[in-house]
This record gives sequence, C-alpha cells and structure tokens, in this order.
Amino acid sequence: MKTGKEYIDSLRDLKTIAYYMGERVDNMVENPAIRPHINAAAATYEMAHDPLHEDLLTATSHLTGERISRFTHIPQSTDDLVKKVKTLRAIGQNTGTCFQRCVGMDGLIAVNGVTYEIDQQKGTNYHQRFLEYLKMIQTEDLMVAGAMTDPKGDRSLSPSKQSDPDLYLHVVERRRDGIVVRGAKAHMTGGINSHEILVMPTTGMGPEEADYAVSFAIPADVPGMLFVFGRQTNDTRKEDCQIDQGNAQFGIVGGESLVIFNDVFVPWERVFMCGEYEFAGLLVERFATYHRQNYGGCKTGLADVLVGATLAAAQYQGVDRAAHIRDKIVEMVHLTETLYSGSIACSEEGHKLASGQYFPNPLLANTTKLNVTRFMYEISRLAQDITGGLIATLPSEKDLKHPEIGKYIEKYFKGIADVPTEDRIRIVRLIENMTGGTALAEAMHGAGSPQAQRIMVLRQANLEHKKRLAIKLAGIKEPKEST
Amino acid sequence: MKTGKEYIDSLRDLKTIAYYMGERVDNMVENPAIRPHINAAAATYEMAHDPLHEDLLTATSHLTGERISRFTHIPQSTDDLVKKVKTLRAIGQNTGTCFQRCVGMDGLIAVNGVTYEIDQQKGTNYHQRFLEYLKMIQTEDLMVAGAMTDPKGDRSLSPSKQSDPDLYLHVVERRRDGIVVRGAKAHMTGGINSHEILVMPTTGMGPEEADYAVSFAIPADVPGMLFVFGRQTNDTRKEDCQIDQGNAQFGIVGGESLVIFNDVFVPWERVFMCGEYEFAGLLVERFATYHRQNYGGCKTGLADVLVGATLAAAQYQGVDRAAHIRDKIVEMVHLTETLYSGSIACSEEGHKLASGQYFPNPLLANTTKLNVTRFMYEISRLAQDITGGLIATLPSEKDLKHPEIGKYIEKYFKGIADVPTEDRIRIVRLIENMTGGTALAEAMHGAGSPQAQRIMVLRQANLEHKKRLAIKLAGIKEPKEST
Amino acid sequence: MKTGKEYIDSLRDLKTIAYYMGERVDNMVENPAIRPHINAAAATYEMAHDPLHEDLLTATSHLTGERISRFTHIPQSTDDLVKKVKTLRAIGQNTGTCFQRCVGMDGLIAVNGVTYEIDQQKGTNYHQRFLEYLKMIQTEDLMVAGAMTDPKGDRSLSPSKQSDPDLYLHVVERRRDGIVVRGAKAHMTGGINSHEILVMPTTGMGPEEADYAVSFAIPADVPGMLFVFGRQTNDTRKEDCQIDQGNAQFGIVGGESLVIFNDVFVPWERVFMCGEYEFAGLLVERFATYHRQNYGGCKTGLADVLVGATLAAAQYQGVDRAAHIRDKIVEMVHLTETLYSGSIACSEEGHKLASGQYFPNPLLANTTKLNVTRFMYEISRLAQDITGGLIATLPSEKDLKHPEIGKYIEKYFKGIADVPTEDRIRIVRLIENMTGGTALAEAMHGAGSPQAQRIMVLRQANLEHKKRLAIKLAGIKEPKEST
Amino acid sequence: MKTGKEYIDSLRDLKTIAYYMGERVDNMVENPAIRPHINAAAATYEMAHDPLHEDLLTATSHLTGERISRFTHIPQSTDDLVKKVKTLRAIGQNTGTCFQRCVGMDGLIAVNGVTYEIDQQKGTNYHQRFLEYLKMIQTEDLMVAGAMTDPKGDRSLSPSKQSDPDLYLHVVERRRDGIVVRGAKAHMTGGINSHEILVMPTTGMGPEEADYAVSFAIPADVPGMLFVFGRQTNDTRKEDCQIDQGNAQFGIVGGESLVIFNDVFVPWERVFMCGEYEFAGLLVERFATYHRQNYGGCKTGLADVLVGATLAAAQYQGVDRAAHIRDKIVEMVHLTETLYSGSIACSEEGHKLASGQYFPNPLLANTTKLNVTRFMYEISRLAQDITGGLIATLPSEKDLKHPEIGKYIEKYFKGIADVPTEDRIRIVRLIENMTGGTALAEAMHGAGSPQAQRIMVLRQANLEHKKRLAIKLAGIKEPKEST
Repeated sequence: MKTGKEYIDSLRDLKTIAYYMGERVDNMVENPAIRPHINAAAATYEMAHDPLHEDLLTATSHLTGERISRFTHIPQSTDDLVKKVKTLRAIGQNTGTCFQRCVGMDGLIAVNGVTYEIDQQKGTNYHQRFLEYLKMIQTEDLMVAGAMTDPKGDRSLSPSKQSDPDLYLHVVERRRDGIVVRGAKAHMTGGINSHEILVMPTTGMGPEEADYAVSFAIPADVPGMLFVFGRQTNDTRKEDCQIDQGNAQFGIVGGESLVIFNDVFVPWERVFMCGEYEFAGLLVERFATYHRQNYGGCKTGLADVLVGATLAAAQYQGVDRAAHIRDKIVEMVHLTETLYSGSIACSEEGHKLASGQYFPNPLLANTTKLNVTRFMYEISRLAQDITGGLIATLPSEKDLKHPEIGKYIEKYFKGIADVPTEDRIRIVRLIENMTGGTALAEAMHGAGSPQAQRIMVLRQANLEHKKRLAIKLAGIKEPKEST
Repeated sequence: MKTGKEYIDSLRDLKTIAYYMGERVDNMVENPAIRPHINAAAATYEMAHDPLHEDLLTATSHLTGERISRFTHIPQSTDDLVKKVKTLRAIGQNTGTCFQRCVGMDGLIAVNGVTYEIDQQKGTNYHQRFLEYLKMIQTEDLMVAGAMTDPKGDRSLSPSKQSDPDLYLHVVERRRDGIVVRGAKAHMTGGINSHEILVMPTTGMGPEEADYAVSFAIPADVPGMLFVFGRQTNDTRKEDCQIDQGNAQFGIVGGESLVIFNDVFVPWERVFMCGEYEFAGLLVERFATYHRQNYGGCKTGLADVLVGATLAAAQYQGVDRAAHIRDKIVEMVHLTETLYSGSIACSEEGHKLASGQYFPNPLLANTTKLNVTRFMYEISRLAQDITGGLIATLPSEKDLKHPEIGKYIEKYFKGIADVPTEDRIRIVRLIENMTGGTALAEAMHGAGSPQAQRIMVLRQANLEHKKRLAIKLAGIKEPKEST
Repeated sequence: MKTGKEYIDSLRDLKTIAYYMGERVDNMVENPAIRPHINAAAATYEMAHDPLHEDLLTATSHLTGERISRFTHIPQSTDDLVKKVKTLRAIGQNTGTCFQRCVGMDGLIAVNGVTYEIDQQKGTNYHQRFLEYLKMIQTEDLMVAGAMTDPKGDRSLSPSKQSDPDLYLHVVERRRDGIVVRGAKAHMTGGINSHEILVMPTTGMGPEEADYAVSFAIPADVPGMLFVFGRQTNDTRKEDCQIDQGNAQFGIVGGESLVIFNDVFVPWERVFMCGEYEFAGLLVERFATYHRQNYGGCKTGLADVLVGATLAAAQYQGVDRAAHIRDKIVEMVHLTETLYSGSIACSEEGHKLASGQYFPNPLLANTTKLNVTRFMYEISRLAQDITGGLIATLPSEKDLKHPEIGKYIEKYFKGIADVPTEDRIRIVRLIENMTGGTALAEAMHGAGSPQAQRIMVLRQANLEHKKRLAIKLAGIKEPKEST
Repeated sequence: MKTGKEYIDSLRDLKTIAYYMGERVDNMVENPAIRPHINAAAATYEMAHDPLHEDLLTATSHLTGERISRFTHIPQSTDDLVKKVKTLRAIGQNTGTCFQRCVGMDGLIAVNGVTYEIDQQKGTNYHQRFLEYLKMIQTEDLMVAGAMTDPKGDRSLSPSKQSDPDLYLHVVERRRDGIVVRGAKAHMTGGINSHEILVMPTTGMGPEEADYAVSFAIPADVPGMLFVFGRQTNDTRKEDCQIDQGNAQFGIVGGESLVIFNDVFVPWERVFMCGEYEFAGLLVERFATYHRQNYGGCKTGLADVLVGATLAAAQYQGVDRAAHIRDKIVEMVHLTETLYSGSIACSEEGHKLASGQYFPNPLLANTTKLNVTRFMYEISRLAQDITGGLIATLPSEKDLKHPEIGKYIEKYFKGIADVPTEDRIRIVRLIENMTGGTALAEAMHGAGSPQAQRIMVLRQANLEHKKRLAIKLAGIKEPKEST
C-alpha cells in the first residue's frame, strides 16, 4: 500500500490535461490551487499506515486476501459498512475537508454488485472483467474518481431529447476492441488528482437511451480527456496566503472538475455496462445509497472540527462559559451526532446482495443525507453566531504582518490576555472557510440534491403497510388500497 | 411465559389500591378508563407467542438459559440492544400507544449493572440479591413498573432542603428485617396494572441525602401503597364512546399514576441500594440512557401508524396524489426514520459494562431522545395539516348513530364515493387522539425533559478533543486548554 | 349597543335547533358544553362598554355615524385595519380563547366590497340590499356567524362533479320572493350562539356551478336549519369539572358546528350573490385575506396568556430563573411578536377598494396566517416543555377535593413553599387545555389550511419583477420571461 | 443634494488613510476592491434624483424645511419610520447588497434624541451642538458612517478592566478646545468611503468608565485616523473578474473597516457626549432599535433579488415548473415577507420621544432582527438547493472566455435551448456570491448578534402583565409576583 508521499509522487507521472482559471495546469503537485486537495487525498494513504487508524483505513481483500485500502474494498459484512462510516469520520476529523476518495470507492462497490446482476440476467461477463480491474486497483492501491453526473442541459427533457446529444455522455462508436464515448461529467470530485476515472450513468434510462447506459473505467490521462478545475470560495487565497486560507494544508472542499470526453476510446476489458439500459437506474440507486451512507461519516468529522474551532473562538474572546454559548455548542454536537447516527444505523441495518457484498438500508441512508442538507447549514449558522462579527471583517494576514500597521491588528484583535492575536485570527479564518460558500453547497448537493433523497424516501417508505396498521387500530373493517 | 389472557387474569388477583377521578377503583380489569392500558400491556405478552414476533419479543436468559420475555432480559450484546429497539417499534406499530413495559425493563437492566458495581466498590451484596429477584421475575414473567421521578417540590432546592422532607422518597426507618420508606413517585407508567414496582432514586445525591439514595422492589399491592391514576386528554371518551376514542382497544398513552408510599415496609432481600449516595447519580444516568435508547423504537412504531392514518385520511378525501400532500408524508417518514436511526445507532455503538451487560452509547441515546421531543411534535403537526379542519370539529359518534340526525352526518362527512363515512371518521378520530395533548407531552417528558438530555450531550461531547482537532488544522502551535 | 348580559339574554329568545352528543340542545345558555363559548362572545359585547377598551372595540359607523361595535364596522382606513388587529389581541388576552366574532365580521366586510363590484359590472343591486342589512346589524348590534366552508366530499372533484350535489351548498329553487338553498356549512365558529348566519361560497366557481355561487344572510333560527355542535378536546370536562377545564369561564376554542340547510328559504332582500360565479373566487379571496389578517391578533392574545401561564408554572416549581427556561420564554415571546408584526404590517400596508373600504395587503396577510400554522405549535411545544411531565399525569380535581386522598394530592403536587398546590394545578390545567388538540388544530385550519396560503403567496409574489431585478444585477442583457 | 457622480467625485478630495491587503490605498475611487462599495453608496445619492424613488429617498428637513436625503433625516412621524424601511428595501432591490448609509443615519437619529435628554437632565448643551452639526450634514448632503463596536478584547471583562485600556475607545485628554481620543472601532460599514465618522459608545457604562462614555463626529480624513479594510468572501474576484463577482457593479457586502484612533483630536463643537456614562446604555439601545428596524427593509430587498435569481436559475435549467421548486420559491417569499412585516410593524407601532422624533417599537424591532439571523440563512439555503451543484463547481470566466476550452464550457454548461450559457453562469455566480460567507455573516451580526436581541426581547416582554392575564383566567385568587 502506498504512503502519502508515494501517492503524491505517483501523480507526477500522470499526463492528465487540466485547466484552471484559464490556464493549463502544468504541474498539479506544485500548483497552489490544487495541492491542498492532493494533501487531503494523501492523508487517506498516510493514515492507513498509522497504527491508530489502520484498523479503520485498511481491510482484507475478499479477492486476494491481502491487506488493502478500505477505499478499494467491497464490504463483506455490516461491520464493514460501519467501518466505512467510521473511517470517513476519522479522516474528516484530521483533514477538516473532503478527501475525495468516496466517490470512487462507492463506484467500485456499486459496479461490483450490478455487473454481477447484469451477468446473471443477461449472460454477459461484465463482472469477471470488473473483478480483474478491481484486483489491479487493490494491488496497485490506486485512487479512483467516480464520474456520475452528466451536464444534463434542459432538465425537463430526457437524455435522448436534448438539443445537443452530448449533454449526457454516450457511446458514439462500437469497435471490435472497444468503444468510443463522448460527453462530459460534471462536479467530479478529486478527478484531477486521481489515477483512474470510473464512469457510471447518471439516471435511469429507457430503450431509446441504450447508448447512454454505459459504465467503464479509464486512466485519468487517457487521450481525449480534459479536466477543467472549478472555482471555489476564496480559491485565490491558496495562491498568496497562509492564515487566510483557514485550512492551508487540506483546503476547504474536494476539488471538483468538469471532465470532458472528446471521443475517448475504452477497450472492452474496461467496459462494465454498455447498452443494458434496464440496469442504469439500479446502478444509480445503488451508488447513491452507498454514497449517501457516507455523509454522516465525513461531514460529522468536519463538524467535529467546527465544534472545536467554535469553542476555541469563544474561549479566545472570553465567552465560552456563557449559558447561551454552551447551549449553542450543545446544539451543534446534537445535530452532528444525529447525522452520525443516520450513517451508523443504515450500515447496521444493511443486508447482503446477490453478489455477496453488503448494502446499507436505503431508506435510512437517504434520510441521513437529507438531514445533512439541513443540519450542516444550521451547524455553520451556529458557528458563525458564536464566532462573532469579525468573521466577516477581519483584515488580511498581510495587514497582520505589515511592518507599520501590523501592530494595530495585533493590538485591536486581541481577545483574552494569554492567547496570541494570531491564534485567534487563525481560528476565525478556519471557521470562515469551513462555513462559507462551496463548503455548504457540497453538503447540499454532494451525493444528490435533496429532492433525489425525498423521492427515494417515498419509494422506500412502504406506505401501504403503514396504512394497514392504522386502519386496523381505527377499527375499520375492509381497508381500501391506495395506489 | 404468560399469554395476554393470563396476564390479564393475573391482575384480578392483585389487591392494588387505586383511585381515579375521585373514586376507588374496584376492578381495574373491567374499568373502562384502565382497560385499554391493560390491553396494551397484554399485547406485549401475547405478541411473544406470535411466531412473527417471537424472535424480537423473547430472549434467552443469561441466568437460567430459559426462553424469557425480552422485557425481563439483561442485554448481553449489541445485538440484544438493537433487538430491544426493534421490539419496541414492532409493538408500537401494533398498539399505536405506550405499552408500559420499558420503564421496568430499563430499571431491571440499570439496577443489575449498578448493584454489581456497588458491590465491587463497597463489598455489599446487593447484586446477588438482585439476581435472585430477577430470576423470579423472569420465571414468573411478571410485569414490573419502574418508579423514578419524585414529586421534587421546589426544584431550586435539593432533596434534603425541601420544606417537606417527603417530597423525595426516603428511608424513615431501618429495621433488622428491612426498611420503611415514605414519599411518592410521580408519572409512573403502567404502575396500576403491574405486578411489581421497582424504585430508584431520581437524581444524584450528596452525603446529606443518604436516606434518599434508595432502590428496592415491592409488589404493587403491598400495604401502605396507594395509586392515584392521572387524567389524560379525552379520558372520559373511554367511558361512553368507541369511535371517538380513536384507538379504543389500546388507548392513547400508557396510563400514569402518582404512587404514594405511606411508610411502606421493604424486606432486605428486596433492597438494592440503601445509603450509597455516590451511586445514585450513576443509577439515574444508566437508567436514563437505557430508557432514552428506546424512544426511536416505540415512538417510531406510533409514527408509522400516524403516517398510515394520515395517508388514509388524505385518500379518503381524494387528495392523496397532490404533490404537497406527498411531500408532507415524505417529511413525516423522514423524521420518523431519523428517530429510528438514533436508537439503532446508539445500540450498535454500545459497549460492555463491568457486569457483563451491554450499554448503549449515551451520547447517541440522548441525542435520540432530544430529537423525539421535537420531531414527534412536527410529525403530529403535519398529520393535523393533512387531515384538515374536521379534526377539530367532528360531531360525536352519538350524532352519527342518532336516529334522526345520523343521516346528515353520514351525508355531509362523506369523502370519496367508495369509502363509508364512518371509516373516514374513525381515521380522523385516531389521528386526533394520537396527536393531541397527553400523547405529545409524553414524547416531551418521558425518559426526562429536554434539558436533561442537553446536559448529558454536553458531558459526553468530548469537547477538548474536538478543540485540539481544530487547533491543529488552524496551524496553531500551542493549544490552550479550556476548562 | 348590547351589554354582555343583554347579548346572553337575547340568545334565550332564539329557536335555533341544535344537537350535541346525540341530544337536542334545549337551552343553550344553561348548557355547560356551550356556555363557555357564549361567555367568550359576551366578552366582546361587555368589553365594548369598558373605558379601557372602548376605543378599540367600538367604531363610528360610516353609514349612520353612530357608535357601533367594531365587529359590525367596515374599515374606512388603515388605522381601522390596525385597530381590528389590536381589538382581537386585547380580547384574546382577556378570554384566552376564540371569541367567535371575526368570521361574521370579515364576512360582512368582504360582502360589502364584492357586492359593490358586482353591481358595478353587472348592474345588479346587491350592494344596496346589503347596506340595508348591515345597518340593521349595526343598529341592533347582532352577532353574525360567517358560513363559508362546504363539506366538499371528494376534493379531487369540483362542486358540480360530486356524486351528491348537496356536498356544496346550492340554490335548488328560485322563487319570485326568494331562493331555496340546500347543503351544509362545516366548522362554523360561533354559529350556535349567533343571531344571524352569513353564507358565502367556499371556492372559485365556473359557469357550470352558477347555482353554487350564492351568498345570503338568514336568522340562525330560520326553519329548515339544523346545527350539530362538534366535539372538542376534553369537552366533557365542561360538564363536571371546574379546575380541570383550565379556562372554565371561556373554554378552549370557539365552538364549531356543522350547519345543515334543508331547503331553507331566503327572501331576495337577504340575497347578496346568486349565480354571479365570476365573483365567487373574488369573494373567497377577499374574505380569506381579511380573515388571515386577524390571526396575528387573536392568536397573539392567546399566546400572551400562554407565555404568562408558562412563566407562572416555572415560578411555581422554582425554575423561573434558570437560563434555559428564560431562553425558552424569550423564544415564545419572539414567535408571538413575529405573528403580531404580520397582522400589523398587512394592515398598515392596506389600500382602498372601489367600495371605499380598506383592504389589508394580501401577501402579508397570507404570510401571517402561514406563520400561525407553525409558530402556535412551537409556542405550545415550548410551553409543554417548561411545564413539565405533570401536564400529562395530573390527577383530577375530584382527587384533589377527595376527603381521603385529597391530602396526598395537596402534599405531593406542592411546588415552592408559598404557592398553594391548587394554584399550581390550575395553571397547569390552563396550559394543558390551551396547548392540546383542538386549540392547535384551530391555529392550523382556521381561515384556511396552509396550502391555501401558499397558493396565495405564489400568486401575490410578483416573481417576474424579482427576476428582472436579478437579471439586471447579474449583467444579463435580454431577460427571458418565464410564464 | 448630491448626484451619484458628485458623491464619487467628492471622495477624490478626501485624504483618508486606508490599508487593504497589506497596501496603502492611494485612490479609493479607482481601487477595484473598494469601487463596488462606492457604487452602492452612490446609488443612494442617485436614486434620490429618480422620480420613481424620490418620495422614499428624500424628506423635508424639520430643521431647514429643505428637501434632504432621507439618510440625514430625523423621523417626525410613524410614516417617516415606515418610509425609512421602504427606502431600504427599494435600494436593496436595486443594488443587491449593503449600501452602507444606515449606520450613520441611525447614529444621527439616536444622538439627536439622546443629546436632547442629556441636556434636559444635566443642563448640558449637547443637543444644540448636534443640531448645528446635523444642519451642516443635511445641507452638504454628506455621507456619515456610524462607529459603534469597539474591539472589546476579553468579553468577560468590562471596558475599564481590560489589560489594554484602549480596547474600548476612550478620552485620553480633555483640552480647552476639545478632547483627544484613543482606541478603535471595528466592523465599520462604509467608513472608508464616507465623509464623516460619528462615534458612539458600544455598551452601557458605569461611573468607573466615564472616559469611555463618549460620542462625537469627525471628518474621515482627520489626522491620527487609520482605516484597515477587511477581507470579504471572494474579494480578489473584484480585481480580475467580472462575471465571477456575481454583482460586479455593487459588490456583495458593504465594505467593513477597522478604524484606529491614534490620539485623535475632536473640537468641543463636535462632541455630543463626554462622561455622561448613565446615558451610554440608552444611546446604545436607541441606536440598536433604529438599526434593527432596518433589517426587514434592506435584507428583504436583497432577498427579492435572490428569489428572482433563483427562479431564473431554475428556469434556465428547465425545472421552474416542478412542484417542489415552486414550493421552495414560495417558502423563500414567505420568509422574506415575514421579515418585511417585522420592519413595517415596528415602524407603525412607533411612538414619539421627548425630542419630538419618532422611535420604533423596540420589542418588534428586536424580533425582526432576530428573525433575520435565521431566515436569511434559510432563504440562502433554499436558493443553493434550487440552483444545483454547479454553484460549487463552475469554472472561472477565464475558462469560459478561453480560446481553446471556452467552447467546452459553452457546450456543457448549457441549460435550456434559448438561454445563452453565459447568462446561466451569470445568474449562478450572482446567487453564489449573495449566499456565501460574508453576506450571511452580515445578516447574523449586523446591528448586533442574536443574543443582544434576545436580551432586549426579554426586557421588553412585559412578562408580569402576561402572568396576570393567565392567573386570572386560571381562576387563581391572589397572584404571586415573580421578580
């Protein structure tokens, strides 16, 4: 298994084509806009070698029996599902940001199960292909980015009805040795610093959309592929500040790209679905459930940091004993643990699929993510409340370090006597960057927007059973079925 | 193990002294105000014999190896903790109300662990006494009511400072063969129809309150004990209505009493704590955690019924397909499953105590109950929203059955064509009684009021650890410890 | 103008036919189930003679120049609209319940404006008829109940498509001297103890529903009309308790009836709309806005009582100085004043209609009522939180007064030393009855259910204007119009 | 009265000393980081000359009878108070950001009333001095920044107990011709581009803090004064982007500075309080109420823009007709209008002070601001929900304009067919910048943090009156007074 350093070094060999802020990225490892995200991913490699965390961050491969990264492991039990959650919280606590490995992990897990089921029903051999691929990933300990969300154009039209057929990624040519695909995938977390890209369809498909029902994996630096790295809140602070970044080492979110597939060739041994439109929706739902399972893991790790930072901010200005401050801290913890409970519960209530892997309870996984889209905002709101107005008005670190006016910043942003002004500023900058803009939008839309979760809750709710319970207790004789 | 009928018959032999609405209760089994509560408790006996539910409702005694009721079982694993939650949801779904067994169950479990620890530290022999008692309860399959909350008088004063020393239950005499106690316990759920009463202190105690640090068990019909059965919302409907009760078979809450101890004698073999004030707080916290663990179990069973009833009410008036109705139903389910997740998660995250029994994660258990004090209100609000104004204005069933005006009720409360008016009324009455008054107050105060949970969240939050995480990420060199 | 006593005496002369709990109501004034509601209505008469309140409760008729009750006054200015709100809060503070006069008041006001507009467009003479009727109401100071909500049967079908044509009230015969109507009106507040009933259509109508587009007024005791008085939470307590009622003098809600029109004859001079279906929707919207304007008035009066009761309950058990209690009280006040602000603002932002009367801002009025459907629940939840578990378990007043066990109730429900136990019980009973069941459902559905308000907010929001503002600031050249 | 251009030109003459990002600001008018804020302030001058808005933006001076800017007017009626709110909403709708004039306006208004009252009680002549100053401001139509918040250091210590006495601004020397002051004011909105600075104390003071009880006005470019302009979310986008700024013309917040007073001399004719510590708290409360009154004005103007932008974003991707989108838009409008109602209501309920000016109802004004600290977050959350994931991942405008990859951005961020990709990006950028970071923190802390409002709600709630209402209705004989 790779160390953090080995992971970073491996990125230097990639020929990934990427743009950011209108410029070609030549050396992503040394690029200040990208490096923090690389550091966060590197932490997932490095922590696997830390005795304190290795029980969570590693697992035993059911394919090879070798010790592997949990991020390449297919869950073989509910205990594996629970550990997946705990792993994410632990890394979230140590990085305070998105570390980008989950989308690929959940893609691998979902494709593993669905290829098995396609083969069972259609007599194809996707699953064996996939297992070979998976073995390679496990052995070489590669970072895989999951690619799911298509640009989607006009949301009121299905993929095949768009004015531009490329607004959903699709097969444009089938050759003897492979397929050629065109389109793009948006919001791709960690793609730019991954070794591999695993593509999945973005929604259920009908027969007229067979060309859009495609799943495959390719190296990130394959010809025809192009990354455009997106902007984030305060992204330019990465270029000329330290303190003002808040979390200079790891950044504030995962680093998302638009990835463009300009007639990219994929050899058949890396194709895991091609035309089996009936399974597109299943793959999406499986992936979504595995991914929504995570959000009470990673986000609670971040919330732990935020609770701690907020407490420190309160202490640094002498208000940490006030009843209303304590009460808000309790509320932040309460919301955090409610999110965590969701992820633990959907894991514990998981069950085995046909492929032998374990699957979290989808009703509870969706419930968890839906709470994340509310509670992370409320936790952030409370953090901003306690931190005070300086979160919005602090001068830059260049002013703090300025030979003439630095002394005024030192003097007038001083809190309690025995805490240096710079420490106070550092904590406020951390809170600022964890609670503003992109960081929250990620909690909203990562793993699907809230309405996607509501639809799943409705589907999974077994409402007719509940109605029968009520009808019986109400003393009604012949229940009416609703439809 | 007793059947439901055997349980009910066993109550006829009790000589429990009880009052309700200013009158002595002669025959509780036939008393219309009490019978629904007896039926709900009987369901916990009867369902244990139902093959569909026996895996949840029964367990194997770690003392005798016999099959016993889960309500008398000491959890031996996290799986036992999870099953405790699932048992409660299943019975809640089938009764739609409080079935009263949990307080006694949690009392037995908590006393089991704490007597072990007292003995370890003080060289006493409470635990062995308790095990004998527990074996008897398991073998005879008795219903035990837990008695914890003292009247408490002026809350700003500790037990020993009250103007009336009896406002907390205490030992007034120590004899060779036992002790004599005086005081009262309030809000006792299911006490009137229990065989046994298990008394625990209500709060942590200091040395000056050693006489208040007392735990013991006595039969419910012991001399000197007196029950006063409390009022509930719409309680008189039990006396002359069927439909208007909503849930005529099982009632709307558990049936709470004030229980007065007029110098009651307790033999030593039934005394489990007497003066060890240092353990009073521990016993309370243990009990509270076990009890708060439950609330995402039983209450979600009730919420399932309410969701089903609300859907039926919507269907009966032709609006169940409307987008805003569906959305509110989704919200009700979402909140329900969030509560359930809390109970599952605190169980799964449980750990073993010195006594060998398993204990739920107290932080998550408290979080769960705190959510119950909010979400059950919101679920009820949404149910009332969908049900419509007739929830507040329906005429009585006597009008519906009236020879002259009944036809108008039939005619004008008709909903969709193929559902009888009476069915619609029955469902509305069920919702009315599940969402009004006592039912909600139980969700608020059962297992402790919200502030009690907040205090526990604060204690369990490990805030210093969180602060260290933040300080490290903020790049601060020497962390300050807050206190 | 009538005194309270004169109002009550005037009811003795009515021959209103009413049923309650399966029995004919012979003497409503002495009927314990109805008397509290009569008392609440009487307070609206009595307070008009109280120098402290007469500025609010009376007004000068724009028709006669006489001093009249505000409940029969047509608002002639925004100041009149503001005083309407303040009147309701003042009476709410003094009665703690619904005093039933608003529906009729708002009906009179709405019909005044719409008859004017019908006449303008159709050349009819409804308005003059109505003014004659109004003068009589003002002069004789009569209580008018508004009748709007039809039973509605299957909500997915329009009035003319119902399987039973009578599920919406309609004209069944047009005679030379008047019309004959059949149907029913549900949830009629205060109808049973009113002198007059003012009928309006319940929704917008199309040409095929011209017979349903009907508005008129009739005495409450006209032949063919029949009231069935609905049940309320804890209604039987009115029959044999004092303390347990909570608010024995005035009750907990307004007293709602189903009113059945069995071919009731209405002379033409009392018909204010008959077939002008194009105006049915307008009348409904006007009425709804005037009525929703009220809810931050009357309900805040009730909330004031509830805040005060909750503070007293806290004080009586010694916790009123605790920080978390104070904070919850602040939250109750905050929510209350937010509701009040809504009613004041929609009044202040009112404008003059064609008829010369003033009309509240409909967007703000709907916003106000929508908040009522949330905040009254939250205020109640907080009240139940602070009050404590005894709100759900208190024994009956018969136990308190019982010769043998009364002493135990006295002893064990004692709070702080210098407050009698009975006072504490009285306050808890008041809170119990103000926060449970019917009282909350009234806040939800009175003046229309929440979805009705949301539809109006959408209609009134002027979204295109807002979009233009955004497009301009975003620097977009040619705005797209959405539709 | 100045035009927008005249205002901007007038700034060129100022010698204000300011730093930003570690550099001296030479020419604020052309500085890209400051210019948008200047533009927003200029809009307040320019709109006063617009016939559409002049009724709101101008008023008649009660001192001179001249037409003046509303921002220099002392409210003479509740109508003036209402117009103050409407003025702010109108400008907010047109700028989409903070336009900085309110703090100075409210400072002028508050000092006007309090100087009158100090003089009445102390025989001083502050008020006359102030009137002379005010006349000058009105006549020259100057922009005044209000300076209230001191750095405050350790919040658990009062001003005189701080380790550094300068952490609250104070008088260090009293001369015959004036005073010398030292200290700083934080979070000063619009200070850098104002003509005048009006200083007020930040909290109530005791006798030992007489030197801290000081109020005065000085030109912004007086010797010894130094501005350090704070950072904002995405501030560097102002330097090299247009589209990515979201609101390139006016910016996203008001532009806050730390202002340092290094022994600044103030002549007596500009001193309005000096040592009258008993009035410091009154001045703070007056100012705070006038300022909190505003927040349902300006912020609802911004929310209007945000609602419009969100609707446009939904339309641009083809989802604006979806029921759940409409419902969220309704919720955004509902929350906006609730905030507006608060500001209108506190204005309408205003009363006259001793000085003759009108004062908003403080209970309602505080309630309004408290809702702002919640609802602006929720409105923003809903906007981010509807906008979708691209709010967090959009590439920069440099990528959009890039000769090689620009075509891919065009292609893959296309929404519905007839809306240019750039328009969609512009709207998303507007929403991103209005909902992230500093913009929300301003809603939280501007005009005081939430706890400050809660304390005022508690003080203003008249709880004893409410308790008496409850006690009477509960039938309790002799009310107990709590304290």
